[in-house]
Amino acid sequence: MTIPHPDPTASVLIIGNEILSGQTDDANLHYLAQRLQSLGIYLQEVRVILDLEEDIVAAVNDCRKKYSYVFTTGGIGPTHDDITAAAVACAFEVPLICNKEAADRLFDHYSNRSALYSRMKMSEMPHGAELIDNPVSAAPGFRMDNVFVLAGVPRIMQAMFENLIPHLKQGRPRYTKIIFARISEGLIAQDLADIQKEHPDIEIGSYPRWIQIGDHGVRIVVKGYCENTAELVQNKVVKMFIQYGGEPELLSA
Amino acid sequence: MTIPHPDPTASVLIIGNEILSGQTDDANLHYLAQRLQSLGIYLQEVRVILDLEEDIVAAVNDCRKKYSYVFTTGGIGPTHDDITAAAVACAFEVPLICNKEAADRLFDHYSNRSALYSRMKMSEMPHGAELIDNPVSAAPGFRMDNVFVLAGVPRIMQAMFENLIPHLKQGRPRYTKIIFARISEGLIAQDLADIQKEHPDIEIGSYPRWIQIGDHGVRIVVKGYCENTAELVQNKVVKMFIQYGGEPELLSA
Repeated sequence: MTIPHPDPTASVLIIGNEILSGQTDDANLHYLAQRLQSLGIYLQEVRVILDLEEDIVAAVNDCRKKYSYVFTTGGIGPTHDDITAAAVACAFEVPLICNKEAADRLFDHYSNRSALYSRMKMSEMPHGAELIDNPVSAAPGFRMDNVFVLAGVPRIMQAMFENLIPHLKQGRPRYTKIIFARISEGLIAQDLADIQKEHPDIEIGSYPRWIQIGDHGVRIVVKGYCENTAELVQNKVVKMFIQYGGEPELLSA
Repeated sequence: MTIPHPDPTASVLIIGNEILSGQTDDANLHYLAQRLQSLGIYLQEVRVILDLEEDIVAAVNDCRKKYSYVFTTGGIGPTHDDITAAAVACAFEVPLICNKEAADRLFDHYSNRSALYSRMKMSEMPHGAELIDNPVSAAPGFRMDNVFVLAGVPRIMQAMFENLIPHLKQGRPRYTKIIFARISEGLIAQDLADIQKEHPDIEIGSYPRWIQIGDHGVRIVVKGYCENTAELVQNKVVKMFIQYGGEPELLSA
């Protein structure tokens, strides 16, 4: 059960054929999910899409209407398969232009002129883009309205994300309690549903962990805006586990 | 650049609040991406969505029209937050019923009757569902038309996926060549674009790897249906790297 909330929402678009073809394991989703959670911004959807202009345009336009923020990763490098900036320009129906400030930063960073020339593509951005600093390798990301366009390389993406936080509206923090027991999820299903019914303002998730036959457990995740209520529900879950012969452990969120 | 292809296509829907809230790192996307690739089935989109009926219904209905196959993971357990089966029934506009064969399997598997009772929810499936075997923990997945509904626990999801492969139409294999060099992506961007233009039937991807300042490289991934052409392009990339002072390494795909 997911509680509707008045806080900012977000989606992440991971752009890259290499993840969909299994060539590369995505390393950005988990980082962004954790950071957004800690900022009180509710990540509601992630899409991994191809380096195809029409797919990027459709996903950007769909998500920017539905969510407070859209974060894209990938496709802003200097090579022929980097088409995110052009696609975002297309989504916003503005021309793709050379951003003077981005070009200046590349100019300052690359002393080797031939290296500079081939990287000038990275200064091409939609008209009206605001830059997002890249303290690692100079070439900036950018923002168009509620869409933040970030690099795909995890270290650079993370540095860009940390830089743009002051531009985000943060939500209320939610308190999270996690209780684990080596007990089968099926046993507690009904009691857990009853606890959920008693506390509609709390989100209770149940996540089985399978180790091997005869050795498995379940992690109950309790989330709410009110710490006292979250604690009350935690105590009910602990009692329930004990009642079914489990030995509950409290895990850190 | 992505080449349109006549082979089967797919999307994956990862259903689970826990991944979007950063609580759990998804472990299924990479596995499915690699297996589908090896079967010649082109994974074109992945969505990670909330345990919310309307979100699941919308994603299932959107993706089953667009792609040859849809694979969902998560949300088919016995607890109150497992709503995938109900949502898929809703997407197909059929009733959610107790599947007799699924109930029989649960009945055979759980000798403890109270354990059985609380797990009967896992026999509820859309009318018309065909079962997908679960050799790990009995409770089956199911198929509705081109939508395959799998567990979220990686070991169980993988066992289910391997069982359903005979029901999938496989595509032609693509040959993949990977060339790495410790050279900056920007340097080779223009030459690489020229190679891509000469071989429109080959997909060339360029993926920077950032280690630290002054130590970074680029991985070029070449894919095509004709092995000779893929090799020819690989040789051109090797030559290009050498020309820019890189020491190319061929990596295994």
